[in-house]
Amino acid sequence: MPKVSDKGSRMPESPIRKLVPYSEIAKKKGHKVYHLNIGQPDIRTPEVAMNSIKNLDIKVLEYSHSAGFESYRTKLSQYYKDHGLPIDVADIIITTGGSEALMFAMGSTMDVDDEIIIPEPFYANYNGFSTASGVKVVPVISTIDTGFALPPIADFEKLITPKTKAILICNPGNPTGYLYSKEEMQQLADLVKKHDLFLIADEVYREFTYDGDPHYSVMNIPGIEENAIMIDSVSKRYSMCGARIGCIVSKNKEVMATAMKFAQARLSPPTFAQIASEAALQTPKSYFDEVITEYRERRDILIEALNKIEGVKVATPKGAFYCIAQLPIDDADKFAQWLLESFDLNGETVMVAPAAGFYSTPGVGLNEVRIAYVLKKEDLIKSVDILKEAIKTYNA
Amino acid sequence: MPKVSDKGSRMPESPIRKLVPYSEIAKKKGHKVYHLNIGQPDIRTPEVAMNSIKNLDIKVLEYSHSAGFESYRTKLSQYYKDHGLPIDVADIIITTGGSEALMFAMGSTMDVDDEIIIPEPFYANYNGFSTASGVKVVPVISTIDTGFALPPIADFEKLITPKTKAILICNPGNPTGYLYSKEEMQQLADLVKKHDLFLIADEVYREFTYDGDPHYSVMNIPGIEENAIMIDSVSKRYSMCGARIGCIVSKNKEVMATAMKFAQARLSPPTFAQIASEAALQTPKSYFDEVITEYRERRDILIEALNKIEGVKVATPKGAFYCIAQLPIDDADKFAQWLLESFDLNGETVMVAPAAGFYSTPGVGLNEVRIAYVLKKEDLIKSVDILKEAIKTYNA
Repeated sequence: MPKVSDKGSRMPESPIRKLVPYSEIAKKKGHKVYHLNIGQPDIRTPEVAMNSIKNLDIKVLEYSHSAGFESYRTKLSQYYKDHGLPIDVADIIITTGGSEALMFAMGSTMDVDDEIIIPEPFYANYNGFSTASGVKVVPVISTIDTGFALPPIADFEKLITPKTKAILICNPGNPTGYLYSKEEMQQLADLVKKHDLFLIADEVYREFTYDGDPHYSVMNIPGIEENAIMIDSVSKRYSMCGARIGCIVSKNKEVMATAMKFAQARLSPPTFAQIASEAALQTPKSYFDEVITEYRERRDILIEALNKIEGVKVATPKGAFYCIAQLPIDDADKFAQWLLESFDLNGETVMVAPAAGFYSTPGVGLNEVRIAYVLKKEDLIKSVDILKEAIKTYNA
Repeated sequence: MPKVSDKGSRMPESPIRKLVPYSEIAKKKGHKVYHLNIGQPDIRTPEVAMNSIKNLDIKVLEYSHSAGFESYRTKLSQYYKDHGLPIDVADIIITTGGSEALMFAMGSTMDVDDEIIIPEPFYANYNGFSTASGVKVVPVISTIDTGFALPPIADFEKLITPKTKAILICNPGNPTGYLYSKEEMQQLADLVKKHDLFLIADEVYREFTYDGDPHYSVMNIPGIEENAIMIDSVSKRYSMCGARIGCIVSKNKEVMATAMKFAQARLSPPTFAQIASEAALQTPKSYFDEVITEYRERRDILIEALNKIEGVKVATPKGAFYCIAQLPIDDADKFAQWLLESFDLNGETVMVAPAAGFYSTPGVGLNEVRIAYVLKKEDLIKSVDILKEAIKTYNA
């Protein structure tokens, strides 16, 4: 019997998917499960996007251009310019989700055994894309005590080797909710310039910031045009996770020409979803105002409630819709499993994502969980009540 | 300025895309270009598929399961069973096109520097996926003189090394149109069994066979359940190239568990297109009868006309909608470019795909082109007329 590849054996399991069998157990018991574990928002997709598909009149569902429909790229460039980002049509390749944009970015900039430095905790699938690309993740630890601010640049410099090709950040951060300041972005820019590295910024949560602090895009720092690669997606912006439309953006012509070869090999991004994503660009500002107000209120309620639980430490997120919470428990993996398998409060329980899966360094974050505030406020309040009782019972 | 990866530099350019600037020149001159170069059919997408999207009533465009919607996988399994293929729901992971299925198959079975044997000429993007995966393509030559039949098994055996992990076939073949016989499939089965290799079969053209000869799927050969991996796609079957929906199919549980980790990393295949693909399974048989009759008539007209040109040799395709034609010219690359840049017959010209890009062995197929019969009959007749005159002029 032929064997699977070493690479395939090393592909990580999603830290969330591991819990799915236990959530099935909870459901079989008839327990209601509040899903604090996922990044699937409950927010409505803009009608203008959904209607574009309903009113479609095409006879043959054809491939698009490998870089995506030109009409979409043109309007997307304008969208970025309207938001202060100097991005031209030629700087954009439309991808199948931010996921594919990350794969193209890694494939275009890194060879097998090359190294990418990523502040941890980080989006768990960066591990998967790195393994698939044969690239080694070198984590640099950020901590809950600083609210997951950028680690000192000296910590990065210690990790740079001749194999280091890029630094990858997520801004605002999944799972931390941290929003990098202008100073932090400038420090990163100086660092990549000094060491001739790429700076890959996953900015899919760009629009979700809550305290009036501006978002500083990697595309907006003068002098690192050749280093900067931006990853974007419509998934969160328009609550269109199922579209699978994102893009890779760079002013580096060689990077874009290389990414284009990866894009051509897979022919094109999905046609229906590109049409919906192009239409989504007409979403009225009022939609975002409402959505961001909703998320801010959820965040405030969640963080306030979490802070009231004895022994819980949480870094207030400034953006995105996640937070990392440190719980007074021994092992978040065990706790998350126990919540589903053995606990309920009046027939209800919660599912959280153990944070260890978001760290690359073994043994770090064992008592932390990631909580996504993608549920409505009353459900968030109930969820934290359940969590509070659960911690008591678990530790008793 | 940071440099792109070696892998990225080695990514091949599509043999068709290289000609695009020259087709722009032809269009600027006001010349009509008949596109014999592409695999984008002009056939209508079934209405049942397009309507499923129009009548959609969902509020949030959510991720699907990473393996694809269960309802779709269930119906797809039934579709295969109705077509004599014993494929269960658990044997299927829905992918973003056949392209992603190929990437998952390579990633799950091969490590960097492993070798995959592919009869050439082969679908050019196999080179791209192999380069992206760090896998080495080892070509085994099939020739126009045998109509691109399976090369002798001894030729394969000469190429097998400890690094060989899989054999990849396309059946019926793009670009050859060759349909493997039961005996050929059995020879391949014995070979992979003997050497403990995977047999990856790209069967996206399965339904397109023209002479009453049956299609023998890799999933239908007893005894190689652990070796067989099938690649499939809705792109050609329902003229839904823009959907970007395919699947990877195998009875090998370890392969499927590994492919699932790649699937989870990229979250899910596109939601809209899965809905349309699920609906497409209701396409009436009459649709296929019409489409296959149309393709058969096109093939017959094309091959007859090509055979009438002096010096042209063509292998009659038994399936898919391509053929390889050997032309009495020195260099098909130069000729294809010249057709667009410098030739016209009454303001019209043709675009063909030079076949060298479908071979991995350098210097082979230099006077061959791939012709796709995805145009209506009168256009095919006109195209071959143009080609005939062009060959005369070019050689004069």
